[in-house]
Amino acid sequence: MNSHPLSAEQLDAIHGYWRACNYLAAGMIYLRGNPLLQEPLQPEHIKKRLLGHWGSSPGLSFMYVHANRVIRQHDLNAIFVAGPGHGAPGVLAPVYLEGSFSEVYPDMSQDAEGMATLFRQFSFPGGFGSHCTPELPGSIHEGGELGYSLSHAFGAAFDNPDLVVFTAVGDGEAETGPLATAWHSNKFLNPARDGAVLPILHLNGYKINNPTILARISHDELDSLLRGYGWIPFFVEGDDPAAMHQQMAAALDQCVADIGAIQRQAREGGAVERPRWPMIVLRSPKGWTGPKVVGGHRVEGSWRAHQVPLADVRSNPDNLARLDAWLRSYKPEELFDADGRLVESLRALAPQGPRRMGANPHANGGLLRRDLRMPDFRDYAVTVAQPGRERAMNTRPLGALLRDTMARNPDNFRVFGPDENSSNKLDAIYAVSKKLWLADRLPEDDDGGELATDGRVLEMLSEHTLEGWLEGYVLTGRHGFFATYEAFVHVIDSMFNQHAKWLAICEDLPWRAAIASVNLLITSTVWRQDHNGFTHQDPGFLDLVLNKSPAVTRIYLPPDANCLLSTADHCLRSHNDINVIVCDKQNHLQMLDMEAAIVHCTKGIGIWDWASNDQGVEPDLVIAGCGDIATQEALAATALLREYLPDLKIRFINVVDLFRMTPEKEHPHGLSDRDFDSLFTMDKPIIFNFHGYPWLIHRLAYRRSNHANLHVRGYIEKGSINTPLELAIANRVDRFSLAMDAIDRVEKLRSSGAHVKEKLRDMQIAARHHAHEHGVDSEEINDWIWPHGS
Amino acid sequence: MNSHPLSAEQLDAIHGYWRACNYLAAGMIYLRGNPLLQEPLQPEHIKKRLLGHWGSSPGLSFMYVHANRVIRQHDLNAIFVAGPGHGAPGVLAPVYLEGSFSEVYPDMSQDAEGMATLFRQFSFPGGFGSHCTPELPGSIHEGGELGYSLSHAFGAAFDNPDLVVFTAVGDGEAETGPLATAWHSNKFLNPARDGAVLPILHLNGYKINNPTILARISHDELDSLLRGYGWIPFFVEGDDPAAMHQQMAAALDQCVADIGAIQRQAREGGAVERPRWPMIVLRSPKGWTGPKVVGGHRVEGSWRAHQVPLADVRSNPDNLARLDAWLRSYKPEELFDADGRLVESLRALAPQGPRRMGANPHANGGLLRRDLRMPDFRDYAVTVAQPGRERAMNTRPLGALLRDTMARNPDNFRVFGPDENSSNKLDAIYAVSKKLWLADRLPEDDDGGELATDGRVLEMLSEHTLEGWLEGYVLTGRHGFFATYEAFVHVIDSMFNQHAKWLAICEDLPWRAAIASVNLLITSTVWRQDHNGFTHQDPGFLDLVLNKSPAVTRIYLPPDANCLLSTADHCLRSHNDINVIVCDKQNHLQMLDMEAAIVHCTKGIGIWDWASNDQGVEPDLVIAGCGDIATQEALAATALLREYLPDLKIRFINVVDLFRMTPEKEHPHGLSDRDFDSLFTMDKPIIFNFHGYPWLIHRLAYRRSNHANLHVRGYIEKGSINTPLELAIANRVDRFSLAMDAIDRVEKLRSSGAHVKEKLRDMQIAARHHAHEHGVDSEEINDWIWPHGS
Repeated sequence: MNSHPLSAEQLDAIHGYWRACNYLAAGMIYLRGNPLLQEPLQPEHIKKRLLGHWGSSPGLSFMYVHANRVIRQHDLNAIFVAGPGHGAPGVLAPVYLEGSFSEVYPDMSQDAEGMATLFRQFSFPGGFGSHCTPELPGSIHEGGELGYSLSHAFGAAFDNPDLVVFTAVGDGEAETGPLATAWHSNKFLNPARDGAVLPILHLNGYKINNPTILARISHDELDSLLRGYGWIPFFVEGDDPAAMHQQMAAALDQCVADIGAIQRQAREGGAVERPRWPMIVLRSPKGWTGPKVVGGHRVEGSWRAHQVPLADVRSNPDNLARLDAWLRSYKPEELFDADGRLVESLRALAPQGPRRMGANPHANGGLLRRDLRMPDFRDYAVTVAQPGRERAMNTRPLGALLRDTMARNPDNFRVFGPDENSSNKLDAIYAVSKKLWLADRLPEDDDGGELATDGRVLEMLSEHTLEGWLEGYVLTGRHGFFATYEAFVHVIDSMFNQHAKWLAICEDLPWRAAIASVNLLITSTVWRQDHNGFTHQDPGFLDLVLNKSPAVTRIYLPPDANCLLSTADHCLRSHNDINVIVCDKQNHLQMLDMEAAIVHCTKGIGIWDWASNDQGVEPDLVIAGCGDIATQEALAATALLREYLPDLKIRFINVVDLFRMTPEKEHPHGLSDRDFDSLFTMDKPIIFNFHGYPWLIHRLAYRRSNHANLHVRGYIEKGSINTPLELAIANRVDRFSLAMDAIDRVEKLRSSGAHVKEKLRDMQIAARHHAHEHGVDSEEINDWIWPHGS
Repeated sequence: MNSHPLSAEQLDAIHGYWRACNYLAAGMIYLRGNPLLQEPLQPEHIKKRLLGHWGSSPGLSFMYVHANRVIRQHDLNAIFVAGPGHGAPGVLAPVYLEGSFSEVYPDMSQDAEGMATLFRQFSFPGGFGSHCTPELPGSIHEGGELGYSLSHAFGAAFDNPDLVVFTAVGDGEAETGPLATAWHSNKFLNPARDGAVLPILHLNGYKINNPTILARISHDELDSLLRGYGWIPFFVEGDDPAAMHQQMAAALDQCVADIGAIQRQAREGGAVERPRWPMIVLRSPKGWTGPKVVGGHRVEGSWRAHQVPLADVRSNPDNLARLDAWLRSYKPEELFDADGRLVESLRALAPQGPRRMGANPHANGGLLRRDLRMPDFRDYAVTVAQPGRERAMNTRPLGALLRDTMARNPDNFRVFGPDENSSNKLDAIYAVSKKLWLADRLPEDDDGGELATDGRVLEMLSEHTLEGWLEGYVLTGRHGFFATYEAFVHVIDSMFNQHAKWLAICEDLPWRAAIASVNLLITSTVWRQDHNGFTHQDPGFLDLVLNKSPAVTRIYLPPDANCLLSTADHCLRSHNDINVIVCDKQNHLQMLDMEAAIVHCTKGIGIWDWASNDQGVEPDLVIAGCGDIATQEALAATALLREYLPDLKIRFINVVDLFRMTPEKEHPHGLSDRDFDSLFTMDKPIIFNFHGYPWLIHRLAYRRSNHANLHVRGYIEKGSINTPLELAIANRVDRFSLAMDAIDRVEKLRSSGAHVKEKLRDMQIAARHHAHEHGVDSEEINDWIWPHGS
């Protein structure tokens, strides 16, 4: 390792480029005029309100300009992921200097006027945020919430063999759980087929008000930790810029060489083994090159450098002078010409065209997106001769669809799951792509382990990491599918929120090309947790999804296998959405043949004529089901009522597309009031059996004409170790409870229905007893009681 | 380190005790009769449905019985935290054998009948779950969701100097983010004052269907990783029980000795430094001692051992014979007497009385709970001469209250926050207790770093770890307070869900004594994210809270500092709840003096007469606010309407206790319909300005008589970098929008109100322009427009 790889000229140039970045970053925080300091600095040149974060900016720019050097030197195809949340000035600056910013925002041109606009727009209403938001070209990671830089970076690298993802990991962020486990992503990156992630752990030293843990353990401990995670760290430590430039250049040269060697070895044949990838630890002072001491307090190298190092600049002449001196310390007159353009000698340091990290198409992944080559989902149909007679595992045919999708799109599609794809009955996929495993192997793995070094199914017991990988994969233009247990999708609530916000912002950015949707299958649902119990019962993710922008949120609850196939096909073809599909993995009654399923899913909501008897008349009652098990029980209740009260006219409705329930002005999938009223009537009682928490339906439908008659059942947090039937009864979503509810609500049955209610209650007691005594599973119980409603 | 610390007799005994555990664990999965195998095993002895998880059970029992040995030897005060989710049989077994189980559940007595009941009740409807649920004596950690064992364990150890928390960390769980960062908890444990956590990382080797990462990296890498985390690992590896017992006993002796030495050194004076605590890595086969090979497939030492190793036992005579042989391999006849009681020589191996880990009062923390000694919260009141005139930071006085609460309860109260207590204006607390910091120190820390080795404020940038610590602290009988940014409380959504479920179950367990509530202050709220923007805007945690049991959920939105003090005092005195308090940290208008605040918060909802002009008459309109900023804007809208439409009779309502909005049968804090109607009228328009997503209010109030007239405004996910006023306008919660909404909804203003609406719109445009142009902050803007509504 050459310890001084930079010539004096190179050192001078790279230092100049970095000074320009630092000057711009400070300018963004402070200046509303006089961008080149061509006049003496006056209070009116200073923003009225100082917002922004100086602390990690110089370190981020330092990484960026050094990345630029190796990109040029090796013609690398690279993007930059900035983990430190508030470091936007440190990334905005080099993206602006390389020209990619002005190409997207011509008013922020590469001249004095454009620079002034950039300064003013930073952290200003309607302008640019203090994170690497979607508005920033080159960004695939906002970092507003901390913890996901590494998993996003790995997602970007998968199946992008030529890509290098420079990833700044903040030492604050590094304390989060998601980041702490994401270091293990290196066990899931195949050097022959995937690109490289080059993490740069930034020991900036401080968070908002505290030191960081990783900056305050010994060098040996940190080295040991990172090696334990499977990395080979190179340390770049200090505060003298000249020495640090040499160190950083040397470390980057070494890392790029090592990455190349690893990739060559893997790609030139031979067994793929897990490499120990290189990484960099950059220990530099927080607020590096900024004010050293202010008011007797250390600022550079302290938490006090986090935001605005010098306050009261407009009103305090001393501070104004200090700011002036600080800004002039970068010697802007040497860096920019009189028009505010970066001098030619420095401009030459940036890569060209799409090699600029702000213009690399991988960071605007929609540009590279190729539609999936989809098999015909109808080929996987379950035969349904008659509705509601046969059982099948809803997710099994989907596994076959995913398998053949994977076969047709080997480098463009991935399936993610936390150790549960087999449990979730999606294991057909292993016939085409096994689970990637680059950690150690044992002989017994060959007996059904389904592990391979070239698999594209990714399974790790970290929903955070999986979701991060998936997002990174999709953001860089590919497609993916994530299946997870319903209760534990809450682990990624916050990631969902952030991705939904990212997508919502992108809706207003025409230059961001559409990316594939994030597809989440929520399975192993609340109603089938026979041996897991209460902790595994939580259908509340949907409540969260409903809070986010209607432009990007979609929720589907297919009632059976064919509807699931149709829904999944639709979702895999969609873009810029987050599709949440709720469907259980166990054996369930099959309702619709494929033709009917397509019609039904296309409408998203509909009357099932075969289950209704209101043909040609006004119904006395509407019964609706939404969700597989909820629909089954609603259907059985309908059958019971029709058997015992044959004069009762019942309309049966199933809802697949949950947003159909909301008014059309609230969501693009919303049903018009007219259509809603014609389905649910203006005045008839509605018994609505819902998969999740019942109040969610009220939240969607409270504006509807017939809302006063809408009676919703769903999960009301009554659970423990239970048979499915007992669980249903406890939450009153079982067929008997529903039928009794219905009788209570139909005026004309007030008296005549009493004996039927009695009978239903007896049946319920007997069924519960049977289930409890025999400890039988859901299927048996259903078989036992189903004939009563057939 | 003595490599063979056990004598032949001791080895024989401990192995016998472990065999008894394994026998019981297998019995729980399989047997419904013939518990002692006194008859030949017949199909009718086998459960009809085989549920339960064998895989990690033997390893857990192995740890438990070895912990018992050192507890007896050193008279340790210890509890056991079982991370591996599905290992309940491995913990239930030794808890039953030591007698603590039967003391709580007399029908599961220590005899054949009790054993048969235990077997039948395991994983059976109405019985015991397959996790270490609240029903299990000695458990403070269910493990249904993985990842929190270590943080719970540290929470238990804080301020419990004599406690040792044996913590089984599953290697599946170890892949989760929360667990991966919780290893760093050792930087926050003071050996002089806190107890010890002894992690036992269980390299069981497999998850449901996959190997685990930590079991498939090299010994050196794992050793390096754990040392990097700051631990000293001792490895116990193998499958031969005799050798493993010796290794485990030697490792435990060493760990207990090292813990003692560390604690003695810290407690006998001298500076407290961060010790390198010992831990154990136990590598043992999954399903250890179970069937080796079934159907040609390896089971012991494979993922196939995860659940039920032998299926079809009732119908397949070969498998029945295999089960018989397996169960008899433990030689139950040597372990239990004819009555099913553990033989005396083995019984002597368990600790006695409260030293038994299933009977240790720390694991039923309510038994040890001492009420907080609270200062009088009225002493911290903000002076409010007239409502709505002066500003104060709502959270500052709370900081002083927390400071003095800490002073009065030095070993019984902790404050937790992710690097944000200063940002959240709670820094008064540092005057009494600084931030605990045991990682390295630098000289500059003395300048305002507020770090100390004996602090009790815990700050780490991991909401997961903080929440886990808080839960562990509270579950073991102490009190705590956690303040966090609103948007990122979603990071712990799933932890909230699980703790709420734990508490809900405890409501039905009379033997579990009440513990202190978990108190969450949600601050830095959606409406004041001037420099953070869209990613930091998410008030949706409340939607999640509403899904959980009304018995344990409480939500408060105090409108000002005095109401926050009154609310916090109430919450800190409460038990068995999760109190969520939403209040912003910035400068806000103060509404109520302390006397009024107490009355108002006690009612939880009320009319503010001073803001209303409907005295003695029916109002034309009800305006309500819930949340500090929402209330301020609603109040300003009221003032605007009263100024420009003085004949309009307005009733102003403020809601502190959100559950007041729901019917009384839905929540203990719910208002009766009669009271609700008398507040909100039966037929007048209601403009309700809500802090969070508006549909939440509809979800609570859809059953109320006047719901059709309830018009709710709140956050509708319209945000970016904005002034507070612009953000409010974008979401239509600003005073002008609200006043215009009101005019639209009051019949008698349909025509006459038009010119006032015009005026309001002009004012709104002018205010927005002013805010935007001047980039001023919320306070200035409020001062600028407030006089118009005064």
